[in-house]
Amino acid sequence: MRETIVSGMRPTGPLHLGHYFGVLKNWIELQKKERCYFFVADWHSLTTEYAQVDVIKKSVDDMVINWLAAGVDPERSVLFIQSEVPEHAELHLLFSMITPISWLERVPSYKELKQELKDKDLSTYGFLGYPLLQSADIAIYKATAVPVGQDQEAHIELTREIIRRFNYLYKKPIFPEPKTLLTEFPKIAGTDGRKMSKSYNNCIYLSDSEEEANKKLMKCITDPARMRREDPGNPDVCTIFSYHKLATSEATRRQIDADCRTAAIGCVDCKKILIKNLTEELAPFRERRKKVKKEEVVSLLHEGSKKAGLVARQTLKEAQSAMGLGFSV
Amino acid sequence: MRETIVSGMRPTGPLHLGHYFGVLKNWIELQKKERCYFFVADWHSLTTEYAQVDVIKKSVDDMVINWLAAGVDPERSVLFIQSEVPEHAELHLLFSMITPISWLERVPSYKELKQELKDKDLSTYGFLGYPLLQSADIAIYKATAVPVGQDQEAHIELTREIIRRFNYLYKKPIFPEPKTLLTEFPKIAGTDGRKMSKSYNNCIYLSDSEEEANKKLMKCITDPARMRREDPGNPDVCTIFSYHKLATSEATRRQIDADCRTAAIGCVDCKKILIKNLTEELAPFRERRKKVKKEEVVSLLHEGSKKAGLVARQTLKEAQSAMGLGFSV
Repeated sequence: MRETIVSGMRPTGPLHLGHYFGVLKNWIELQKKERCYFFVADWHSLTTEYAQVDVIKKSVDDMVINWLAAGVDPERSVLFIQSEVPEHAELHLLFSMITPISWLERVPSYKELKQELKDKDLSTYGFLGYPLLQSADIAIYKATAVPVGQDQEAHIELTREIIRRFNYLYKKPIFPEPKTLLTEFPKIAGTDGRKMSKSYNNCIYLSDSEEEANKKLMKCITDPARMRREDPGNPDVCTIFSYHKLATSEATRRQIDADCRTAAIGCVDCKKILIKNLTEELAPFRERRKKVKKEEVVSLLHEGSKKAGLVARQTLKEAQSAMGLGFSV
Repeated sequence: MRETIVSGMRPTGPLHLGHYFGVLKNWIELQKKERCYFFVADWHSLTTEYAQVDVIKKSVDDMVINWLAAGVDPERSVLFIQSEVPEHAELHLLFSMITPISWLERVPSYKELKQELKDKDLSTYGFLGYPLLQSADIAIYKATAVPVGQDQEAHIELTREIIRRFNYLYKKPIFPEPKTLLTEFPKIAGTDGRKMSKSYNNCIYLSDSEEEANKKLMKCITDPARMRREDPGNPDVCTIFSYHKLATSEATRRQIDADCRTAAIGCVDCKKILIKNLTEELAPFRERRKKVKKEEVVSLLHEGSKKAGLVARQTLKEAQSAMGLGFSV
């Protein structure tokens, strides 16, 4: 049976290689066989970015241009903006009525993120409710499977719990329980070896031109202990080698690994191989990226939001009626 | 300047005398001069009744029939159903992003109601958020004044705080700060002397016929210490005397007060005066009540919800745009 998949991405800045290899390639795989809903999670951005919202509006276009360039296909999948489908907010509100606060407090990412983003005041009602909003995002399309990394597994478990409670309380199996599609999101290091993140200024952006990207790669940190060309290196701690895992064939990678450890290959040559492979991998993406027009994105998202809205409205009506609302039904 | 007023009523059972004298007479006063939005707060019902929702749907029609019979005028005021105006849920979600949990936890009614309704599990995210939903109900119409009893004053103060925070964070004075119209809601005792409440089975319902109502009044408890006709009574503890305050002129009331204390008047005669006055007071209401048709209520609420939705949509667009959303705007 075809699965119904829901997955969103937060507009909180320009996309980088991590998004391309971590999320978009996975989406493109999924859309080959499944019914997919991919959305711009702008309300989710607000849960952490409510005090500096400028970034949200700026990020939406660029984000979706990258989706299209990567091959996310609006003919196969429904692409939409969360805030254009108010049914998400309505189902969120309905779910809130039956969700114990303790279920939300015990979601591991709640305390972790609050700790991690200490510079932001995340003691808000909205931030506590963010996994609940995710549950509504998923349930409103009656999703059967959701691709997530390990750190988000607890959110899907929460979604299942809320759905079970809803179906039980209102004696109607309105929502299916979604499966977790555990997805390996490769951890992508930034050019300085730390986690790739715009706040570290170490990203290779998908909007970077070939030249910009290659310049960053040539300057990229390798094994910090390899000071001279004749020193042997350690690929396990080398950022460039971690990129080879994304773009270079396994055979070549094994060769590089061996040559690095014996200093048979230097960092400059190793980078050149990477650049060649990565450029090849990204060539169709970059080609398409040039052709996507902003107006196209706007109209496409409108169309998609309308399509999503029709499905969402239907589900919402069922939920309302089960809960004794829906005067008009 | 004309005020914009927002006030809602929860559909959680049939209306009784308390609603008539406590709320509806006040609404009718308000609508003479102000721009009023009166709504069926069905989402609010869910915050406490989510586990027994049958009552909600059943209560809506009867509730609005009573509004109309009491003189709430759909030509002057906008009457609508909260769940038919999804913008309330959207603004609730937006407000949730900027509202500290501690602000909600310290609302006095939060702990009090949880204590009072111990038979219900109110440890839900939705119940904690109920004053926030009220804030959205109020702000979405840019209300300038809200009629509340003393126990709800803290909710309006919270609304003002959230509005101040919103206007400050997004540097636009989108929402006015609503005034509190402190309203004396007479505490209406039930026929057994306890608080009038359907769970005590001591209500005089607005749907009771004249005969039913009068029968209940004739059986109603008076001063429990006045055992015999010749005993003097104490009007201060007499339920019937508390009803006189609603329907009997001050002069007559003063006479009754004196006559009761000297046993010059007996309870039966005193009740007969009350019944005469109350019947007179309620006569136009009962007359109109017979004429209101259910279909009329349905179409009227649809119209009203559409009207409310237009205003709500406009406010929501401003809020979305201020927060960096509103791709379509």
